[in-house]
Amino acid sequence: MKTIGIMTSGGDAPGMNAAIRAVTRRAMFYGFKVCGINYGYAGLVAGDIFEMGRSDVGDIINRGGTMLYSARYPEFAQVSGQLRGIEQLKKFGVDALVVIGGDGSYHGALRLTEHGYNAIGLPGTIDNDIPYTDFTIGFDTAVNTVVELIDKIRDTAASHERTFVIEVMGRGAGDIALWAGTAGGADEIIVPEHEYNVQQIAQNIQNLRARGKKHTIVVLAEGVMHADEFMQQLKQYGDFDARSTVLGHVQRGGAPTARDRVLASKMGAYAVDLLKEGRGGIAVGMEQNKLTYHKISDLFTEKHQPDLELYDINKTLAK
Amino acid sequence: MKTIGIMTSGGDAPGMNAAIRAVTRRAMFYGFKVCGINYGYAGLVAGDIFEMGRSDVGDIINRGGTMLYSARYPEFAQVSGQLRGIEQLKKFGVDALVVIGGDGSYHGALRLTEHGYNAIGLPGTIDNDIPYTDFTIGFDTAVNTVVELIDKIRDTAASHERTFVIEVMGRGAGDIALWAGTAGGADEIIVPEHEYNVQQIAQNIQNLRARGKKHTIVVLAEGVMHADEFMQQLKQYGDFDARSTVLGHVQRGGAPTARDRVLASKMGAYAVDLLKEGRGGIAVGMEQNKLTYHKISDLFTEKHQPDLELYDINKTLAK
Amino acid sequence: MKTIGIMTSGGDAPGMNAAIRAVTRRAMFYGFKVCGINYGYAGLVAGDIFEMGRSDVGDIINRGGTMLYSARYPEFAQVSGQLRGIEQLKKFGVDALVVIGGDGSYHGALRLTEHGYNAIGLPGTIDNDIPYTDFTIGFDTAVNTVVELIDKIRDTAASHERTFVIEVMGRGAGDIALWAGTAGGADEIIVPEHEYNVQQIAQNIQNLRARGKKHTIVVLAEGVMHADEFMQQLKQYGDFDARSTVLGHVQRGGAPTARDRVLASKMGAYAVDLLKEGRGGIAVGMEQNKLTYHKISDLFTEKHQPDLELYDINKTLAK
Amino acid sequence: MKTIGIMTSGGDAPGMNAAIRAVTRRAMFYGFKVCGINYGYAGLVAGDIFEMGRSDVGDIINRGGTMLYSARYPEFAQVSGQLRGIEQLKKFGVDALVVIGGDGSYHGALRLTEHGYNAIGLPGTIDNDIPYTDFTIGFDTAVNTVVELIDKIRDTAASHERTFVIEVMGRGAGDIALWAGTAGGADEIIVPEHEYNVQQIAQNIQNLRARGKKHTIVVLAEGVMHADEFMQQLKQYGDFDARSTVLGHVQRGGAPTARDRVLASKMGAYAVDLLKEGRGGIAVGMEQNKLTYHKISDLFTEKHQPDLELYDINKTLAK
Repeated sequence: MKTIGIMTSGGDAPGMNAAIRAVTRRAMFYGFKVCGINYGYAGLVAGDIFEMGRSDVGDIINRGGTMLYSARYPEFAQVSGQLRGIEQLKKFGVDALVVIGGDGSYHGALRLTEHGYNAIGLPGTIDNDIPYTDFTIGFDTAVNTVVELIDKIRDTAASHERTFVIEVMGRGAGDIALWAGTAGGADEIIVPEHEYNVQQIAQNIQNLRARGKKHTIVVLAEGVMHADEFMQQLKQYGDFDARSTVLGHVQRGGAPTARDRVLASKMGAYAVDLLKEGRGGIAVGMEQNKLTYHKISDLFTEKHQPDLELYDINKTLAK
Repeated sequence: MKTIGIMTSGGDAPGMNAAIRAVTRRAMFYGFKVCGINYGYAGLVAGDIFEMGRSDVGDIINRGGTMLYSARYPEFAQVSGQLRGIEQLKKFGVDALVVIGGDGSYHGALRLTEHGYNAIGLPGTIDNDIPYTDFTIGFDTAVNTVVELIDKIRDTAASHERTFVIEVMGRGAGDIALWAGTAGGADEIIVPEHEYNVQQIAQNIQNLRARGKKHTIVVLAEGVMHADEFMQQLKQYGDFDARSTVLGHVQRGGAPTARDRVLASKMGAYAVDLLKEGRGGIAVGMEQNKLTYHKISDLFTEKHQPDLELYDINKTLAK
Repeated sequence: MKTIGIMTSGGDAPGMNAAIRAVTRRAMFYGFKVCGINYGYAGLVAGDIFEMGRSDVGDIINRGGTMLYSARYPEFAQVSGQLRGIEQLKKFGVDALVVIGGDGSYHGALRLTEHGYNAIGLPGTIDNDIPYTDFTIGFDTAVNTVVELIDKIRDTAASHERTFVIEVMGRGAGDIALWAGTAGGADEIIVPEHEYNVQQIAQNIQNLRARGKKHTIVVLAEGVMHADEFMQQLKQYGDFDARSTVLGHVQRGGAPTARDRVLASKMGAYAVDLLKEGRGGIAVGMEQNKLTYHKISDLFTEKHQPDLELYDINKTLAK
Repeated sequence: MKTIGIMTSGGDAPGMNAAIRAVTRRAMFYGFKVCGINYGYAGLVAGDIFEMGRSDVGDIINRGGTMLYSARYPEFAQVSGQLRGIEQLKKFGVDALVVIGGDGSYHGALRLTEHGYNAIGLPGTIDNDIPYTDFTIGFDTAVNTVVELIDKIRDTAASHERTFVIEVMGRGAGDIALWAGTAGGADEIIVPEHEYNVQQIAQNIQNLRARGKKHTIVVLAEGVMHADEFMQQLKQYGDFDARSTVLGHVQRGGAPTARDRVLASKMGAYAVDLLKEGRGGIAVGMEQNKLTYHKISDLFTEKHQPDLELYDINKTLAK
């Protein structure tokens, strides 16, 4: 192997740049050349590929987003696109590939490997919804962003004795809601992975208010329902001043936290080491604080499980 | 005068606590007693009044929201409520009053003064929509919060080459949009005080994209239209990947900026000085970096004007 | 067991309040009473003990420092003080104790348990220098604070093409330096646990500058040497514009990160569960993402090891 | 005039990039060409000059430091250097110049104008020590950075009932200390522009502690004395637990606040307008919220005055 390619795919996540830097610098440390591929699989097929140097990844460890841009490109599911991508890589002399992204990224990486072209996936998504890794790159930053915003909302909620329903990202996974809800001192956390009873929640809020609590905060994962709809349901069962707010796209951005930068650095370096050993078709993870890897095909049969212990703990702390 | 009362009214704003601290400490410096009134005019009428000491306002200068809580209370427009409020104040020996808040607060303060009870208003609102003051308490914090969020969104907008329509607070006033838009490097700022042409904006965005700009950001004051509606209109005229996001209630919270804390400290101290001189029915302002005051009645006939020079400057910088 | 006592001891750390909240709320969830003890072991001996309710720990999850204050109190090494402390606890009906703090806290907790009084220690220190836990409460916040400050210094370092020696906390342990250095993109990390060669570092900095790097950043653990001394040594071997800065006490403060709040919440709840089971003389840890506990006596014979893998990875990424 | 040059000089300040962007974009809006000059007067003499386009200043409005680098270059006081600089500018076809920086920048700009070459100065320094402007670019950011750090230190000060002496930047000017001290709720502010009495301060601190205040904070401008020396003096007169900390270089960095970005945008645009009108040898200011300009020679005979009203107000609020 002489040259490693790197790209980001799917939704962007804070820490992707730190991972790009780590792959690039580690590869150059070993004497490899590095090529960046813009716009994920779309850019791969289009040949939007360029050689990267050390200084190209200077001063990006602290930047949100991805300097290699990203795009969704479902067309890569077709074999013709995959072969065209490999052609482009060969044209640029790229021998192996690191893809940072979510679910879609892994499918592409697996297909490339099946065609005899080694590709490794790194989990880059704020949603934390990838199996065989305790944490994904970007999750810690998103959670901290949400917690800071909950802290701000708590100011105004307390001043007006209001109930706030705060919708956070996480289409299929309640991880952001669970972590940010616990850290934000939420009174209720609603996630797709756990049942809930609106009437009971409304009753609980009224009890808390009756006991003198100045504000109540409900953190809702977007995968469950829209915040406004949930608030309307709540109000059917309880008579209190409630507002809903959707935190939205700000959750994807911002300078990555220390944790995400370290995670990205470790995973990026590790991916290069694994490619150097001739491996492909695998996904890197961080399990129990140890770097691991698994066959990508195994990821498709495994389901990510959020830390529901947090749900139970928070229940006892919010009371 | 022996005792000064203080309360907050209307929507909460960062820096209200710094103003409460300043009023309290300044009054005690002169040897006055200080009474806090909870929940604005509602608490005034209900007699939710308590004596405050130095330590009650310790460690609050950096807190968002208001330790005296706030509430809207339109009932105070009735004379009976006003008289009942004065009765309560007399019962607690409160001789004069400082009210921190927006438009509604001023009406109440004027009524009290007309009944022979001196009350002074401080401009506490994130919207900056109060005449005879260049800046209101809370505005600088809200603008900085919005700018930080725009910075985050720019990360993700650039990564995906997207157009973002970002709705910020300001029902009747475009100040937050103008300041945060300029500081956030927005490509377009839409405010109630300035006409706009959706077709032209869509064209401009397409031109910017054609020229290679990776992201375009439109900052929209809530008083104009809902972000989603605006985005739909935009898309009728242009073919680009656009998203809308409403920043929402987070704009009201957070630790106040240095500027808001200093403004609140100066205004709070000044209000006490003015009450000490026997004045009432006036509103404190900061005009051209100088503390000023005006008759509250003059505020009702004057309209706040945002700094539209910013609009013109930004037009030339965004191109 | 009917009543649980809680106190903080030694240097304060962000997340201590979140732990106090978790212990209090979890205990009340089980129907126990909770007593707070001010000023650590000093307050224990002096009987500065008071009953805590749910609202006493409201709105503290996001506050740095410790609402129970802290103090160093070496006198607690004497048996007389220990017995006096137990007397006080009995006087207030406190049956068991949770102590949050560092090394000194554990010694006290062990002594109390040896006298037949169950006490459990939680690792609360920014230094991360406690065995049998991967992370201590406060470490993640301190690392993030340092990284944000390194990001700021990088701005000015790049503008002036300077070398900065940044001294971070960690008397005996290099954890903060290792994590913050890696996350901050430091060119060199100097810790007590790894040898270094000043001449080689100076040479490396000159090489980086010769290659066009605009700034070089050295992160130095305080346990190694004072930043200014290190800079003087560096300058003996290299001719470049260098500055030193000591980040100082700001590293202890600030709102805790999401990670620290969740860690503190989990550990606090777990400590109550363990006391409920009748255990004492143990220390709670988080190892490989799992809650664990060990005999306090075992902690004294084990030495904490920082993650030196980070040292090696950073070497290859900084080049 | 066809081409405008732009450079930064002296110590860097947050907002310099926003000013560079504003000058560049405004000039291009009028159809001018723009040249950037790296490393201030040193780069000018060396001919380190390059044409800038719109995208060169994209995504820099939110960055601290200066993309054009800066350097101190006292050699520019010599006529030979000045003439060499003008030669370089002519070689690159640059007709007029904007210099962003402090005192030294103005001297150079005046010299160039005296040689018949129009140059305009913008006040870019965190110290706020420039006459004929109420605020300099970078000051608001530095003050907010200091206030955030004071907030962090207050956490730990309160937890341990300590007195902290916090040294902030400002060699000749107490502006940062005055603003950050007032906004940070400091008990004492020590600046070069106001006398102080150490014994009285020590007595005041002891009084505050006797009254139950948990922490006392002294904010000290670096121009007065080193923090450690001040603390030693304090301790001669009072018996209390005190620590000193020097905030240092972090005060220069970080993303600029909204206020600094707006100030820089307005001043940058205005400087281009003034050059377009054929003016030179002048300095731009913001006085009483209005853009102004003065002859540079007038700045040298005028002394900047900090807002000592803040000193007096804080005295009454800290008590």
